Amino acid sequence: MEKTDVLVIGGTAGIDAALYGKSSYPEKRFLLLRKERYVMVPCGIPYIFGTLGSSDKNIIPDTVLTNAGIDIKIGEAVSLDISNKICKVSDGTEIGFEKLVFAVGSLPSVPKWLKGAELKNVFTILKNKEYIDEMLAKIGEAKKIVIIGGGFIGVEISDEINKRGKDVTVVELLPNILGLVFDREIALSVEELLQARGVNLKVGVGVKEIIGDKEVKGVLLSNGEQLEADAVILSMGYRPNILIAEKAGLKINDLGFIDVDRYMRTNNKDIFAVGDCAGKRDFITGKPSGVMLASIASTEARTAGMNLYKLSSVKSFSGTIAIFATALGETCFGAAGLTESQATKEGLDIITGTFSGTDTHPGTLPGTHKQTIKLIAARKKGVIIGGEVIGGPSTGELINLIGFAIQSGMTVRSMLTVQVGTHPLLTGSPLSYPLIKAAEVVCHGMKHQ
Amino acid sequence: MEKTDVLVIGGTAGIDAALYGKSSYPEKRFLLLRKERYVMVPCGIPYIFGTLGSSDKNIIPDTVLTNAGIDIKIGEAVSLDISNKICKVSDGTEIGFEKLVFAVGSLPSVPKWLKGAELKNVFTILKNKEYIDEMLAKIGEAKKIVIIGGGFIGVEISDEINKRGKDVTVVELLPNILGLVFDREIALSVEELLQARGVNLKVGVGVKEIIGDKEVKGVLLSNGEQLEADAVILSMGYRPNILIAEKAGLKINDLGFIDVDRYMRTNNKDIFAVGDCAGKRDFITGKPSGVMLASIASTEARTAGMNLYKLSSVKSFSGTIAIFATALGETCFGAAGLTESQATKEGLDIITGTFSGTDTHPGTLPGTHKQTIKLIAARKKGVIIGGEVIGGPSTGELINLIGFAIQSGMTVRSMLTVQVGTHPLLTGSPLSYPLIKAAEVVCHGMKHQ
Repeated sequence: MEKTDVLVIGGTAGIDAALYGKSSYPEKRFLLLRKERYVMVPCGIPYIFGTLGSSDKNIIPDTVLTNAGIDIKIGEAVSLDISNKICKVSDGTEIGFEKLVFAVGSLPSVPKWLKGAELKNVFTILKNKEYIDEMLAKIGEAKKIVIIGGGFIGVEISDEINKRGKDVTVVELLPNILGLVFDREIALSVEELLQARGVNLKVGVGVKEIIGDKEVKGVLLSNGEQLEADAVILSMGYRPNILIAEKAGLKINDLGFIDVDRYMRTNNKDIFAVGDCAGKRDFITGKPSGVMLASIASTEARTAGMNLYKLSSVKSFSGTIAIFATALGETCFGAAGLTESQATKEGLDIITGTFSGTDTHPGTLPGTHKQTIKLIAARKKGVIIGGEVIGGPSTGELINLIGFAIQSGMTVRSMLTVQVGTHPLLTGSPLSYPLIKAAEVVCHGMKHQ
Repeated sequence: MEKTDVLVIGGTAGIDAALYGKSSYPEKRFLLLRKERYVMVPCGIPYIFGTLGSSDKNIIPDTVLTNAGIDIKIGEAVSLDISNKICKVSDGTEIGFEKLVFAVGSLPSVPKWLKGAELKNVFTILKNKEYIDEMLAKIGEAKKIVIIGGGFIGVEISDEINKRGKDVTVVELLPNILGLVFDREIALSVEELLQARGVNLKVGVGVKEIIGDKEVKGVLLSNGEQLEADAVILSMGYRPNILIAEKAGLKINDLGFIDVDRYMRTNNKDIFAVGDCAGKRDFITGKPSGVMLASIASTEARTAGMNLYKLSSVKSFSGTIAIFATALGETCFGAAGLTESQATKEGLDIITGTFSGTDTHPGTLPGTHKQTIKLIAARKKGVIIGGEVIGGPSTGELINLIGFAIQSGMTVRSMLTVQVGTHPLLTGSPLSYPLIKAAEVVCHGMKHQ
């Protein structure tokens, strides 16, 4: 039987858990076990279908691990003996460990009732290089592509495929695409832009079945409409990969994730879980959350890695703030924390403020983008609990700025005297920096209530 | 005699003081008095000489004020009677007030010993549209331009003028351009890039005199070298405009700024000062600081505006964090808080960490820029006190993120479990987000000391 000190099972988040673990406990042996020969940058996958053009450009090299002295074994974990601390691998070998980290991610959700999902040229987005390579070739041959599910992945892939001159349609059951991430007014901007770029949208309508005979021929919608398609992509969400953990007897939470504490420990103190397979709690409400993001996975992985053998009182994970951003051409969209509609649904007493300015100043500079910021705050104290941004390419770091504000419990009032740097080519104007202006709008609302 | 409730004297920061004042005290009358017919976006001025091509595109419209119900009067304040609360204006009129805000900015520093500064085609960067228009025309005719002073303004103008095919040389007395803002290794990158773009640099050398006979002909350096020039721009720093305040008997601090408290009140509680003319204290050391930035001016102006009649316990100004960013083409440079050399000079026990990654992920994406982040932290507790960034256009908001971290007292350890959002096209990778990686480097250093 092979022996290691820390066994990490999984891909991307596993890399971070192993790296931070090894760096925290350099005297321990670390082994990363994973099914896939290659690890892809997960959020880079949509861009393989257009901008990158190849999965080869989207690989995290193994040297990241080997240079840090971490061993790698390619193989699938098939079962886990918790009491004896042994993991069985698909090749028949066994690995003994002191500590284990599950970073086994998630699998595409395909509803059981969906007829035709097994047809040829119906794809999901699997984090598997060989699968994606084959899919890329087939999508290349296809002319009409229907994407079922208008979340981030569906939207990003639709835009990338559309760039290649294909006829692309996104079907979304909710009233808006990205409807779980953005409030309606922001989501509408995404829809407008996506349509202007040539992607067809069908929102507020479900899918009845996928039609075809061996090969896919089309999609029948719940309203009776039928869309022609020679390829279909299912981006209907992901479910946590908990199979081995559940079989091994680890506790699973109400949303179907591996249950973890603030150090990412499962109910067995020597077994950790991080990333898409691990349970999350919302930073604001404390309720179990189903958000899956590579960036959250990394934070969780760092937390687990640092706390493997000794718990630190400060390095715990204080709850998930979903922080997203995406881009359609030069127009970018970001969200952090709760949206207005999520907050309202949770029964939070909130107040919002929106301001539109520009991402450079003066706005007459070439390359200026409109920048709209919406802040969501607790009505009484003005604590910022969410934000949404439409802007240019600085949106990615700007939404992180809002994420920092949420994490530090900043109020809209303190935002009025916060210091920021401004530069003509790089940010809004000091006189109308949209983030501060949006806070001002919220403050006005608080005063006049 | 004209009467108002709040008299604001000055340009850009005056606008913010008046706007936040009016919004906080809508029942009060506000009058903004200023010398210039037009208010230019101050940090936009360098871009008039290239990217913008005209000062007309760099004007803040008066409607910003008038729409908010604030009156404007064009005229120069010539003296102030503090006990009777009366301001005398150059046109002979007098204005009575309850509260006064000085936002009179700064004036270009031209050393008295500098011979030839009065020659034709020797310019400073005045925030005056007519002056800049004339300067723009003359620079357009010139072939060889020498810029004396390699701070932000000198560097930005040199790059803009260079774009127009002129022969441009920057002369800087310090060992490096931007030497007060960046540590040497970062400043060297700026120098390399600026030279690669075609700007000539003379660093570590002073200016002896400006040569010419009526019109400028050249610049004689302290090392005896002589540079030909048919135009010279003096960007040798700015001095606070305190003339009226000093004559009126207001207290001036040791660095020559109008002395203010945390609410931006002068030693007279009804008179405030904000922006370049107002005293600053460094956020970290508490020492008087001479930093002048439009963004700081805006924060101070908001603070003054909100506290004019009633002091708020939370809306005070807690000390200046210099947060800068600039761009040379697509490569951008940012700094927040103290540099390593400033911190060392102040006797702070510090530790630094630098990490280089990319501003997108995977780095194979088109449009990827290298992103280098240096963090400066207190050695024992790891509190972040400064940061420097070289990267792409997201640098402006990224340095604000570091600014937020400094303002909230964040440590490098808490940075390891902070949540950020990442996106392939917009940020570094979740596995190697440079800001978190730089914090990790500092943490390692702390562990091994």
